[in-house]
Amino acid sequence: MSAASFRALHDQLRRQVPWGTSDRRGALNHITPERLAAAAGEVRLGRTVTLAAPLASSAPDNPEPGTRHMKRLPGEPSDVPGLSFAADQIVMNVHGDVDSHIDALCHVSYDGAMYNGVPPGAVTSQGASELSIDDARNGIVGRGVLLDIPRLRGVRWLEPGDSVTPAELAAAETAQQVHVGPGDVLFVRVGHRRRRHELGPWDVAKSRSGLHPDAMAYLAERQIAALGSDSNSDTAPSVVEGVAFPVHVLAIQAMGLHLLDYLQFEDLVPACEAAGRWTFLCVVAPLRLSGGTGSPVNPIGIL
Amino acid sequence: MSAASFRALHDQLRRQVPWGTSDRRGALNHITPERLAAAAGEVRLGRTVTLAAPLASSAPDNPEPGTRHMKRLPGEPSDVPGLSFAADQIVMNVHGDVDSHIDALCHVSYDGAMYNGVPPGAVTSQGASELSIDDARNGIVGRGVLLDIPRLRGVRWLEPGDSVTPAELAAAETAQQVHVGPGDVLFVRVGHRRRRHELGPWDVAKSRSGLHPDAMAYLAERQIAALGSDSNSDTAPSVVEGVAFPVHVLAIQAMGLHLLDYLQFEDLVPACEAAGRWTFLCVVAPLRLSGGTGSPVNPIGIL
Amino acid sequence: MSAASFRALHDQLRRQVPWGTSDRRGALNHITPERLAAAAGEVRLGRTVTLAAPLASSAPDNPEPGTRHMKRLPGEPSDVPGLSFAADQIVMNVHGDVDSHIDALCHVSYDGAMYNGVPPGAVTSQGASELSIDDARNGIVGRGVLLDIPRLRGVRWLEPGDSVTPAELAAAETAQQVHVGPGDVLFVRVGHRRRRHELGPWDVAKSRSGLHPDAMAYLAERQIAALGSDSNSDTAPSVVEGVAFPVHVLAIQAMGLHLLDYLQFEDLVPACEAAGRWTFLCVVAPLRLSGGTGSPVNPIGIL
Amino acid sequence: MSAASFRALHDQLRRQVPWGTSDRRGALNHITPERLAAAAGEVRLGRTVTLAAPLASSAPDNPEPGTRHMKRLPGEPSDVPGLSFAADQIVMNVHGDVDSHIDALCHVSYDGAMYNGVPPGAVTSQGASELSIDDARNGIVGRGVLLDIPRLRGVRWLEPGDSVTPAELAAAETAQQVHVGPGDVLFVRVGHRRRRHELGPWDVAKSRSGLHPDAMAYLAERQIAALGSDSNSDTAPSVVEGVAFPVHVLAIQAMGLHLLDYLQFEDLVPACEAAGRWTFLCVVAPLRLSGGTGSPVNPIGIL
Repeated sequence: MSAASFRALHDQLRRQVPWGTSDRRGALNHITPERLAAAAGEVRLGRTVTLAAPLASSAPDNPEPGTRHMKRLPGEPSDVPGLSFAADQIVMNVHGDVDSHIDALCHVSYDGAMYNGVPPGAVTSQGASELSIDDARNGIVGRGVLLDIPRLRGVRWLEPGDSVTPAELAAAETAQQVHVGPGDVLFVRVGHRRRRHELGPWDVAKSRSGLHPDAMAYLAERQIAALGSDSNSDTAPSVVEGVAFPVHVLAIQAMGLHLLDYLQFEDLVPACEAAGRWTFLCVVAPLRLSGGTGSPVNPIGIL
Repeated sequence: MSAASFRALHDQLRRQVPWGTSDRRGALNHITPERLAAAAGEVRLGRTVTLAAPLASSAPDNPEPGTRHMKRLPGEPSDVPGLSFAADQIVMNVHGDVDSHIDALCHVSYDGAMYNGVPPGAVTSQGASELSIDDARNGIVGRGVLLDIPRLRGVRWLEPGDSVTPAELAAAETAQQVHVGPGDVLFVRVGHRRRRHELGPWDVAKSRSGLHPDAMAYLAERQIAALGSDSNSDTAPSVVEGVAFPVHVLAIQAMGLHLLDYLQFEDLVPACEAAGRWTFLCVVAPLRLSGGTGSPVNPIGIL
Repeated sequence: MSAASFRALHDQLRRQVPWGTSDRRGALNHITPERLAAAAGEVRLGRTVTLAAPLASSAPDNPEPGTRHMKRLPGEPSDVPGLSFAADQIVMNVHGDVDSHIDALCHVSYDGAMYNGVPPGAVTSQGASELSIDDARNGIVGRGVLLDIPRLRGVRWLEPGDSVTPAELAAAETAQQVHVGPGDVLFVRVGHRRRRHELGPWDVAKSRSGLHPDAMAYLAERQIAALGSDSNSDTAPSVVEGVAFPVHVLAIQAMGLHLLDYLQFEDLVPACEAAGRWTFLCVVAPLRLSGGTGSPVNPIGIL
Repeated sequence: MSAASFRALHDQLRRQVPWGTSDRRGALNHITPERLAAAAGEVRLGRTVTLAAPLASSAPDNPEPGTRHMKRLPGEPSDVPGLSFAADQIVMNVHGDVDSHIDALCHVSYDGAMYNGVPPGAVTSQGASELSIDDARNGIVGRGVLLDIPRLRGVRWLEPGDSVTPAELAAAETAQQVHVGPGDVLFVRVGHRRRRHELGPWDVAKSRSGLHPDAMAYLAERQIAALGSDSNSDTAPSVVEGVAFPVHVLAIQAMGLHLLDYLQFEDLVPACEAAGRWTFLCVVAPLRLSGGTGSPVNPIGIL
């Protein structure tokens, strides 16, 4: 895709945002109370599955791994009478490759602005005064839909560098008998996690499967509320000349669409198969990190 | 309460655990698929509220505060062509006073054992090989119930040191026209957050309102699945001679009951009032911290 | 001191800097090879003392304490054949109150510039591209001189808010029979550590003893190479209208003088008394934190 | 080397320790006041050089890199009247491969004991109650000696896996006209840093040049006070069957010899060449990390 075509697509998607200049929630507005209440109807089996991967250790795709340190061990003498505790501390890069996380709308700046024209200066060393992840403090709760592209293609995973087109999204909907609609939390499986599990980690900064930028126009039309992937939704290398993360730019900066990166669907797929459908109630609960640019998350699918 | 009475209560509660010696999920077993599916029926208004407080800064009740550092600022030149990013890192003590978190079943050791006789040595400097928070990776999803003790008493909050008795839990149920039952995720409001908000933080290690240990027998009988509070459920000073955190011991170590500490219900209370009921679908999604002793969480109430 | 007087003093001290516009080492230039070699002659007893305090835990003057976590314990089974290790991790705010540290010349910006006119934009979220602590990577080695103001006054410590005048520095020199001269690393004891040890910590952000801004003109004339204190050299409240840290501004930003904050001299004082002199070889070895704004340090006095 | 030979060597070196059962300083005792004072005579040129490398970023030999985060930027509006600050935070694994650090005597446990029979249980999740790095709080100050093995061999560096024999140490002494003696802080250059600089980093856990275990008997006889290397002194793979870090065991656990790992001598070598000698005053100043298993350091050579 040429830089000019990307620019035109970006401007078109940005113009379509209907929420007004003071909006800070973006596509989350698509989740109306009615749609949320309807999504609860997806719960029939009483079964839940995690859509997150365990915190990863150092690997070629995880150069600054999060860590967990023990602060207290229960087998040691305690200064608390009558009992002893285990306690730990966590250190995590919110947007670290490979750990499951959500991007706040302040995560991306393009052309000198963040979502809805908020100036980049709204993010300082003290955090984001606007568009922080705490704007999603009440959670993202809606109908979850999983589109499984390797299933559609009959492959184990998409190879790094490959991208999902709008036509493929449509074909997956048909094949899986589901229609993505307003307020849906859409998950697109490219098989990244499965490839990592079977072949081992690689440098995802250089090669990664994801969505084609054109897919974002398709998803804007469908009015989805949030988008997640087992990759980070963007391919590497980029298919757009001179723009490294076109899907991030279109989704977060133009559309106000929260992205969920590096999820895993290996538990969800068999649950959907068992349920005979690819929809579920989805709950994403970002931590309350005031001023934060995102949060580690463990999205839960409830069937 | 004498040490001997506490010991007797402990042993009784521990004996009542029906899940067998290999169980590692404890009271979460009370959430059956049927109960979970029924809980989804609580969603009627399509409204969600957070039950967590924002990450707190340094204060008398937060001596080792969690922090959020900026890694990249969107207003700065970027090494990524065409756009710039905001990114940050978080550092958090999982069991830090005042930040909303869940305790894993490995958090407490008493009498040389953790829940269900797991030896404390299962937790090393490398983490917990058993009873870690990742055992709850699929989330805690069930019917949430809020019992509001200050409302029952007609006060703004319980004063530090005060404790909630079983009789008061029963009275709150009657007053709020709700019956706590099997598989419920119970939240007991003592007004801790409201007091902190209005009077400012104090040293909670020394004085804190919470539940009386006798309340745990009541709740064991009711077969709740998890227990949360805007305090940490335990009073300070302890009402038990020589045991500092009796509710933690009874809940986590004896009953296998996950505790949720330092939540906030100031958003939930008006939502329940508006809904005219004190029940809701509750989703708790711990981060996937393999080997972890707990996790920061943002429990979501869905009405 | 009025804002206008401070401004005049600042401009005067800045104009006096003789090192040219491309200089990045500031007053460290006063340590010539000859002076450094001569300082080695201070070593006669073959005795060394630390001028740092232990990493402090949470306290009213240490709201975001540094921490040390264990990563491995030697008593646990190891994955390394034949032996086991103890290992830990440290987390430290470089300029945290109360922990001994050195300020790099990029630490202070005043009037839109750092030392020698370097623009503040030279420090980004990725660190300082100029004036970072790595400019002192070869250490600060020279003659150390300790001036003990409580000794001069016959008190145990200066009370918070009190400040040391140039006349007192001169009087201390006379009383201690030492002349502060070019290239000296000067330490001014105000008794802060002793007060903290005896009375307990207090909120130093609000009240702190230090040097009067006029003392900086005196020390500029003496051509010292670096300045350390058991306080942070600045009083609180400030004696200058509208400028919170006047000594930091004059020293770091105007003079290019590295400051060493929150040292302790309780080991050095008896060593000097035993040696019968207040001079010694001083070695400060900042960690090699490229782009860093300072470093924790343990300055060593060698007598 | 067979396991039995290693064991015999270990036991012999351990028996030779002359300091008594309550000693906690080990070979640092070799630095007498007389030797320290004499070492100051090495300072003639008034020149200093760092023996540390900059904090490394993520690389194949640095899987959990230390990090430095900005806390405040001087270009941003400040809440302190009249000026603005740059401030940062550091996070470091003390014994992280590739970052320059010192090992405390509690770092190694072998055969169920640390140095001088101290039980491993002296190190808990709260840190080391004995043999911590704070035992070296007054710094390690003595005559530094650099032996340059690649220079002796006429190569650019020792290849990974290669080890330095006692005979080579003796030959280097002869070639460099220096005699290693009691109280010396010895540095052995194997060229690790130069290789890394020229060929790029590799997985040092698998292949690393270092000292042959037999060299430790040689150095014990010479009564050195501390030992540093641009590698970590131990080869990989180990030359001892079933013991992964034999030099660490012999040095730290048997001899009570502090090790300095991953230093760099690329600045020191030309300084020594210019000075026409391989001795200097050496100052190592560990941070005051009470209970710590080591410390990042920046050893300074003064010629």
